[in-house]
Amino acid sequence: MLYSSVNNEKIKNIKKLNNKKYRDETNLYLVEGEHLVKEAYENNVLEELILLENTNINLDIKTSYVTENVLKYISNLDSPNGIIGICKKKKNTLKGNKIVILEDIQDPGNLGTIIRSSIAFNVDTLVLSSNTVDLYNPKVIRATQGMIFKQNIIIENNLEELIKNLKQNNYTIYTTNVKNGNSLKTIEKKDKLAIIMGNEGNGVSDKLNLLADEYLYIDMNKNCESLNVAVATSIILYELDK
Amino acid sequence: MLYSSVNNEKIKNIKKLNNKKYRDETNLYLVEGEHLVKEAYENNVLEELILLENTNINLDIKTSYVTENVLKYISNLDSPNGIIGICKKKKNTLKGNKIVILEDIQDPGNLGTIIRSSIAFNVDTLVLSSNTVDLYNPKVIRATQGMIFKQNIIIENNLEELIKNLKQNNYTIYTTNVKNGNSLKTIEKKDKLAIIMGNEGNGVSDKLNLLADEYLYIDMNKNCESLNVAVATSIILYELDK
Repeated sequence: MLYSSVNNEKIKNIKKLNNKKYRDETNLYLVEGEHLVKEAYENNVLEELILLENTNINLDIKTSYVTENVLKYISNLDSPNGIIGICKKKKNTLKGNKIVILEDIQDPGNLGTIIRSSIAFNVDTLVLSSNTVDLYNPKVIRATQGMIFKQNIIIENNLEELIKNLKQNNYTIYTTNVKNGNSLKTIEKKDKLAIIMGNEGNGVSDKLNLLADEYLYIDMNKNCESLNVAVATSIILYELDK
Repeated sequence: MLYSSVNNEKIKNIKKLNNKKYRDETNLYLVEGEHLVKEAYENNVLEELILLENTNINLDIKTSYVTENVLKYISNLDSPNGIIGICKKKKNTLKGNKIVILEDIQDPGNLGTIIRSSIAFNVDTLVLSSNTVDLYNPKVIRATQGMIFKQNIIIENNLEELIKNLKQNNYTIYTTNVKNGNSLKTIEKKDKLAIIMGNEGNGVSDKLNLLADEYLYIDMNKNCESLNVAVATSIILYELDK
C-alpha cells in the first residue's frame, strides 16, 4: 500500500507518535534509519515498517510505502533517510543483580548514552524516575545506538519505595558524594548492587541520598567541579564491572 | 550605554558571532549565562559584557546594556538568561606530557564533554583536527561547563605531522583497536603520552591508526558494539590518570 497524502488518517496517527502523549496512549514509538530498524526487528519490538516508495529492506514485517512528502511529514529528522519503524514498548520488571537508578535525567543524549553504556557494562535493569526525559524521545533512541532494545528498562513513580525494597532484598545501594564518599578506585564491589545517579543540575535528591549504603566519588582535578552525568555513570559502571 | 535597536551596527556585529565565519575573522566568540561569563572572566578571556537593562553582575569589565528584544536577537537560547559575554580566543601551543588528539569529532555535546573530562583527568593539551566541530559553537561551550577556558586547546591541519613530531619527542601514541589491542585495564601507562580518538561514525582514520604505538580496547559486553566517543575518551583518561 502506498500512502501519498498527509491527510490520510493512518499517516496522521503515525505522525502523532512524535508526541509523548500519543506514545503513552498507544504504547508505540518510532525509530528511524536502517540500523535502528534492524535492531528493533532482531529484538522483536518492530510492529510495522514505513518505507519510501521504490525502496526495499529485507525484513519479514508488515510494510507501508509512502511518498517523499509523506516521509518528510512523519520524520523527525532534517534529512529523513527513508526508513521508519513503528515499535511497541516492552513491559519490563526489575530483575538481576546490577541495577542503575536514574533520578530525573533531563538531557536526551545523556539518557541514551547511559543506556548504551549500561549494556556495555552488564547492567541488568535500568530504573527511570517518572520525571526523567521520555525514554521514547527520538533523540534518546538515537543516542542509545540500538541498545534501548536490549536493555531491561522500567519507569517508576516512587523511587524511595523501590530502593527500600531493594535494600530489603540485600542490594547494596551506592550513590555519589564528593565530600563524604570513598574513592571509586578503592570501593568494595558487592554482588547485588544498585547505583543511584541524579539530575544534571541538582544531582541526587536528599531523600534518595539518605537511603544509600555506600558513597563514592571519582578522583579528579579540583579545577573540574563535576563530570557529565553520562560520563560519570559510565566510569562507575566500568569500574564496578571489573 | 543602552542599545534598543537590532539595526544598530554594533549589535549586528555581536549577533554575527553566532556564525563560525565571523568568529574566525574576529577571534571572538559568545558565551551565555552567569556561570560561563564568570568563568570566562576569572580565566581572563572576557572582553565585554552584554546585560539586559536594569540588571547587574559584579564584574570589572566593559558593559553594554540591551533591551529584551535586542537580547533575544543576539542570544542563541530559546529562553535567554540576560547575560552574554564576548570572549577572545586564546592562542595556545602544544605543551605537557599528556595529550589528547581528536580526529573529526562532529557532535558539539561530545566535544564539550571531552573538554570537561580532559580537565578532570589532567590532560595538558587537547588537539583538534581542523574538521572537528567548531570549538566556539555555543553547544560545545555549554557542554564544557566552563572547562573550555581552563584547557589548552589547539587546532591542527595536519595531524599526521603533529603525531610524527610527538613520536620524535618520545611521546607514546595510544589509540583504540577492538581487534588487535590490549585491555585498558592492563595497559602500560607511559609518562609522556598522546591518545588519538576518532570520529563518531568512522573512528580513527587508517593513516593515523598506523602511527600509534599502543592499541587498547575497553572491555565490554559483546552485545554492545561501541561506547559513545565522549564516554570512551573519559574512561581511557580516567584509567590512565590513576
